[in-house]
Amino acid sequence: RIDGLRLWESLMAMAKVGPGLRGGNNRQALTDADREGRDLFRSWCEGAGMKVAVDTMGSIFARREGTDPTLAPVMVGSHLDTQPTGGRYDGVLGVLAGLEIVRTLDDLGIRTRRPIEVVNWTNEEGTRFAPAMLASGVFAGVHDEAWAHARQDASGRSFGDELRRIGYLGEAPAGRRRIHAYYELHIEQGPILEDEDIDIGVVTHGQGLKWLQVSLTGRESHTGSTPMPKRRNAALGMARVMELVDEVAWRHAPHAVGAVGHVEIFPNSRNVIPGRAVFTIDIRSPRQEVLDDMDDRICAGIVEIADAIGLGAQVEQVGHFDPVAFDQSCIRTIRAAADRLGYSHRDIVSGAGHDACWINRVAPTAMVMCPCVGGLSHNEDEEITREWATAGAEVLFHAVVETAEI
Amino acid sequence: RIDGLRLWESLMAMAKVGPGLRGGNNRQALTDADREGRDLFRSWCEGAGMKVAVDTMGSIFARREGTDPTLAPVMVGSHLDTQPTGGRYDGVLGVLAGLEIVRTLDDLGIRTRRPIEVVNWTNEEGTRFAPAMLASGVFAGVHDEAWAHARQDASGRSFGDELRRIGYLGEAPAGRRRIHAYYELHIEQGPILEDEDIDIGVVTHGQGLKWLQVSLTGRESHTGSTPMPKRRNAALGMARVMELVDEVAWRHAPHAVGAVGHVEIFPNSRNVIPGRAVFTIDIRSPRQEVLDDMDDRICAGIVEIADAIGLGAQVEQVGHFDPVAFDQSCIRTIRAAADRLGYSHRDIVSGAGHDACWINRVAPTAMVMCPCVGGLSHNEDEEITREWATAGAEVLFHAVVETAEI
Ligand SMILES: NC(=O)NCCC(=O)O
Ligand SMILES: NC(=O)NCCC(=O)O
Repeated sequence: RIDGLRLWESLMAMAKVGPGLRGGNNRQALTDADREGRDLFRSWCEGAGMKVAVDTMGSIFARREGTDPTLAPVMVGSHLDTQPTGGRYDGVLGVLAGLEIVRTLDDLGIRTRRPIEVVNWTNEEGTRFAPAMLASGVFAGVHDEAWAHARQDASGRSFGDELRRIGYLGEAPAGRRRIHAYYELHIEQGPILEDEDIDIGVVTHGQGLKWLQVSLTGRESHTGSTPMPKRRNAALGMARVMELVDEVAWRHAPHAVGAVGHVEIFPNSRNVIPGRAVFTIDIRSPRQEVLDDMDDRICAGIVEIADAIGLGAQVEQVGHFDPVAFDQSCIRTIRAAADRLGYSHRDIVSGAGHDACWINRVAPTAMVMCPCVGGLSHNEDEEITREWATAGAEVLFHAVVETAEI
Repeated sequence: RIDGLRLWESLMAMAKVGPGLRGGNNRQALTDADREGRDLFRSWCEGAGMKVAVDTMGSIFARREGTDPTLAPVMVGSHLDTQPTGGRYDGVLGVLAGLEIVRTLDDLGIRTRRPIEVVNWTNEEGTRFAPAMLASGVFAGVHDEAWAHARQDASGRSFGDELRRIGYLGEAPAGRRRIHAYYELHIEQGPILEDEDIDIGVVTHGQGLKWLQVSLTGRESHTGSTPMPKRRNAALGMARVMELVDEVAWRHAPHAVGAVGHVEIFPNSRNVIPGRAVFTIDIRSPRQEVLDDMDDRICAGIVEIADAIGLGAQVEQVGHFDPVAFDQSCIRTIRAAADRLGYSHRDIVSGAGHDACWINRVAPTAMVMCPCVGGLSHNEDEEITREWATAGAEVLFHAVVETAEI
């Protein structure tokens, strides 16, 4: 059993770094707050006697040596970065549960055969730099590292420059680490486990995702003196695309979701008809054919909408992952751990993307989920109970120790 | 006849202050660029021997004394502030044509009986501080001055503080100036004069306007793991309201226009369902009953849209003016001037709001319009010809001199 109180105290200590406005966190990737969170995590790892390495994507790997150091390690972790108005558990729970596993093993004087590495992946959220799960994507060979370093935030600062600025441009080559298996604990971020009063979600699959960045170009003109037929209102086009995304997602519900979360219109003045709108569509489904169908319908719809208003339209895919099937053997290990510990569990599909989805491509991977209140995440009000966190971390602990062997 | 070249050179000199990105201007109210533009205007006025006063709303009044200083002056002017991506003529033409009138009178050695005052009204555009025509509204007694000083821009800075910061918080009490008559020259900002190849618009009426600031409140949550039925997407509500505004305006076209120009959604992150949207609706009509009908339909529609999605909705009117009928005697004076000078003219309704619309409540007022290319305004590509500017300024000159008497 792990020390649930110690885990909780670590969570609360990390939540003090980069506080939000309403009790949550704003610790976006490669900000000063992210640096502070990383420094805290690193000091905890070093305090637990681990050796810390940082790779060229800024991901942090804290290693507890195994009795056979020649063996590939069992890796466990998640991310410490948050949404601009994010919760205290999304990502953080998975990283700090990894640390708690090591601390528990130390308390119990247990040495595993395989090394254990606790990882904090850089820029999981994808808010500041698109796409999400950027560093784990580079690690898994999905993205090119130079391309990733060149990604820019809204103010034009690049990922690479910001990584250097906060002192986390490491030397370990990204992706050149051996991994025997990867486990990630994460809050569900959806309502199923809580609704069904179940302790543990055994994640068998992950939804696929596409992020489409749309630019519509019309003509800026005066809201008062431009007659209706002479308008080329880019924001009106955006509004119609937003409605279309909703329609297309409902068409495939419950096997799909879709929304527009990020919007910019220009010049964004009350009495100017917007001449340009740039916004990002997020569509997801566990079924590849549904995801493709949504993409097709939306892209065709954008052309029609733009033509009807006289707008230019450009669509760029700025994020993408296929639906994921996690490793059967890792899944069985998690199920068995939950059974052994007496926790209720069910198989579940992850609605969100996770670093595990990429790492699954290069190492046997599975995920453990615990409930969150009201299924609410990406919200400062995100909440879990100490019991839920403890149960999740214990299942993770057993799965990791089982895989790392004693 | 005025000196069209000198007028044009003044326009081009002012256009150098607060340059835009594509040849236009960004000289928003009470910015450093606005201060620079004001300083330049003031120096020109002083160079022409005028006495300059600034009122407590920052409006600048440059006075050329009359042979009978006890008489109320003829006032002429417009505004020097611009949209964030504005043109070089919107407002500026009216102010600098006023200056050109004085320079021409000086050249000709003509003294008018009544004084002439050239005015630059503060914050006409309403981009940085809503509502538009703020200082002329205070002057006309429509707005309370303390309320106006407390208006805030998007970053929370107040009108009063910014006025003080740029050194244009004057001492003349706003609204306590006598005005015998007020004339304003402005570019049309719409397509009618150019389409009909007419030199001069004699503005008989102005459209009424309402600005409704809408706040929709839903719930921030994860775009991937929140099932469609559990979403309370504030941006989807906004999209539907944008479509509604367009529908309602078309319903009354050509006697109405409507659009949403300003939008903010929170937290504005690609993978967060927006929990809040704040945006401004701009609806206009020359007919009061149409304006009211649009307002009613939109407000009722907002309630329905919000209910269907489960959003909270608040609507605040942040700008408003009734349709305006300008003074018949001033209108006749302008028409006679155009006839005398041999310019083609037609009566026209102003689609945009102007300081003249407020001043019309406290003094006999009318406006002169000249065409602009493609009817385009509130766009850096806004363009006019030197001939159009000259014609407009000459009609203004004759109307002013006629009214000020020689
Ligand atoms: N778990 C999580 O919130 N990841 C961010 C990427 C996504 O939007 O799914
Ligand atoms: N003339 C002009 O653009 N005024 C700004 C106020 C309005 O939106 O009509």
